[in-house]
Amino acid sequence: MRGFKFAVLGALGAVGQQMLNMLDQSDLPIESVKPLDVKQNNGKKLVFRNKEITVEEVVEGSFKDVDIALFSAGAEASMSIAPMAVQEGAVVIDNSSAWRMDNDVPLVIPEVNPHDLDRHKGLIANPNCSTIQMLVALKPIHDRYIIKRIVVSTYQAVSGSGQRAIDELISQITGFVNKSPIESSVYPYQIAFNALPHIDIFQDNGYTKEEMKMVNETKKILDRAIEVNATAVRIPVFRCHSESVNIETAKPIDPHDVRLLLKDAPGIRVIDDVGSLKYPMAIQAEGKGEVFVGRIRKDYTIPNGLNMWIVADNLLKGASLNAVQIAETLIARNLV
Amino acid sequence: MRGFKFAVLGALGAVGQQMLNMLDQSDLPIESVKPLDVKQNNGKKLVFRNKEITVEEVVEGSFKDVDIALFSAGAEASMSIAPMAVQEGAVVIDNSSAWRMDNDVPLVIPEVNPHDLDRHKGLIANPNCSTIQMLVALKPIHDRYIIKRIVVSTYQAVSGSGQRAIDELISQITGFVNKSPIESSVYPYQIAFNALPHIDIFQDNGYTKEEMKMVNETKKILDRAIEVNATAVRIPVFRCHSESVNIETAKPIDPHDVRLLLKDAPGIRVIDDVGSLKYPMAIQAEGKGEVFVGRIRKDYTIPNGLNMWIVADNLLKGASLNAVQIAETLIARNLV
Repeated sequence: MRGFKFAVLGALGAVGQQMLNMLDQSDLPIESVKPLDVKQNNGKKLVFRNKEITVEEVVEGSFKDVDIALFSAGAEASMSIAPMAVQEGAVVIDNSSAWRMDNDVPLVIPEVNPHDLDRHKGLIANPNCSTIQMLVALKPIHDRYIIKRIVVSTYQAVSGSGQRAIDELISQITGFVNKSPIESSVYPYQIAFNALPHIDIFQDNGYTKEEMKMVNETKKILDRAIEVNATAVRIPVFRCHSESVNIETAKPIDPHDVRLLLKDAPGIRVIDDVGSLKYPMAIQAEGKGEVFVGRIRKDYTIPNGLNMWIVADNLLKGASLNAVQIAETLIARNLV
Repeated sequence: MRGFKFAVLGALGAVGQQMLNMLDQSDLPIESVKPLDVKQNNGKKLVFRNKEITVEEVVEGSFKDVDIALFSAGAEASMSIAPMAVQEGAVVIDNSSAWRMDNDVPLVIPEVNPHDLDRHKGLIANPNCSTIQMLVALKPIHDRYIIKRIVVSTYQAVSGSGQRAIDELISQITGFVNKSPIESSVYPYQIAFNALPHIDIFQDNGYTKEEMKMVNETKKILDRAIEVNATAVRIPVFRCHSESVNIETAKPIDPHDVRLLLKDAPGIRVIDDVGSLKYPMAIQAEGKGEVFVGRIRKDYTIPNGLNMWIVADNLLKGASLNAVQIAETLIARNLV
């Protein structure tokens, strides 16, 4: 198999770093990796598969010799740079929200809708982290029981807001321990020892953009008929998002059957033995590629209802790993 | 009005301390306060209304000269001591779960079901913290729109597990800052930088006792017809529980009307202006007696649905303050 030339835009960010890690650990036939940055970080050295690579500033022509470009540079940068990269011949897998709802752009979770890649036109969008982990867990359930409605409340880690937010939580708890003042700049309020019912900006309908991503991306990826009611909350966790998910299905659903179903499903690890206090947790999912599912139990308030607790590493399956898995799928299906 | 003789059992615990504070700050005609403890802490000195008071070990006869006894010494102690206290002539307001579902024991939130106090037989139960704040917010809504079903996910503070849990979180974050090992004993796993979908013990049906308290106490306090589907989660917050609450009502419901309704309701403060980033938060509710409600918005997935974010100080309205308000109501209604 021929080797592929990769680029990573936003190579110095929290997700970009993980994209390089995930490429490094993958079995992909990688000929080269070009780390790119939108800012003046050119000259900065990184290591990839034991070789030093140098960050370049993205310019016209940066993608001329690139097969697959992984983007994690925010929506604004993506709006202008992705079309250029596609023009120059690269297939772009973009982690921002810029293109997700574009009809010409497949929005893909390889375990859920890999076939949507067939119609790609050079640009593929990586879904939002909260959506990815929820849909990996719900796809096998939807296939068997038909999900009609989802009520989800999230418990999201600060790394979803990037390295500066991780630094802010560290600085706030250090301030608490050292009895010095607690300052906030990434978030509007203190995140240490707090829960913020506010992720991304508020829309006119009273929901945040993060909440509406879960609504709209679920429809695009899994099934337009599924209704999603979401509340997205930031909590003082460094890494891994947790989700309290309630579903209503068309067919009768049984927790025991769902446990067996999910155990055999791709990308999922069931941790669900409450008698032995086994359930998914953020601190255990860190650094792992699977989506962890537990607390699977009947919802007794409706005829066909189920609750579960879904945890995944927001920087891996929620971002970088899913992007690399899209690249793997593209290559395996001869779509590059 | 005559003065009343109070006792506080568990006076040295996190909630017991707040019971003394709440009594101190109340307008109640208090003749005396006797701090009691089940352990050998007798001799320990506390200050109440600028007077030194001495903690006594609870013994037979401790309640002979007591009008109202506030209990916060856990379910086990309450099972044996509450009947004795009632026998000795005190009216007991118990904060534990021991008596809550007993048919002979009123379970009361003064803003919600004060009339249930009329039939008391000497023993009154204080509801669970998560239930109290949810029902204070939902009572006016139920009265007007008839709530049929509640789906709630909680974000609960460690102070709900007592002073040792507060100390454990402090010790874990101090360990993190000082790069020393993180140890857990109150919780089965690290709580710092984590979310534990596990509060109180697991039941055979897969739910925790905390979750079933919200189900059963809601039925007893507000309306047997209301179905509650609960997921209770501990997060690394010191004080104040937050709740993501979704409701389905029998009548059409509008967020704007609900905001106006709650603004005039007792014990509630509406903080809901997302355009100015105003929503309830744990760090702001600390030390306050009201239940804070925000993020009030239509649930677009069902005909009559609404979401809201409810925050209250679990040690105050969720425990000590509600108990003192029960005492105030008993006195105002001549039920002592």
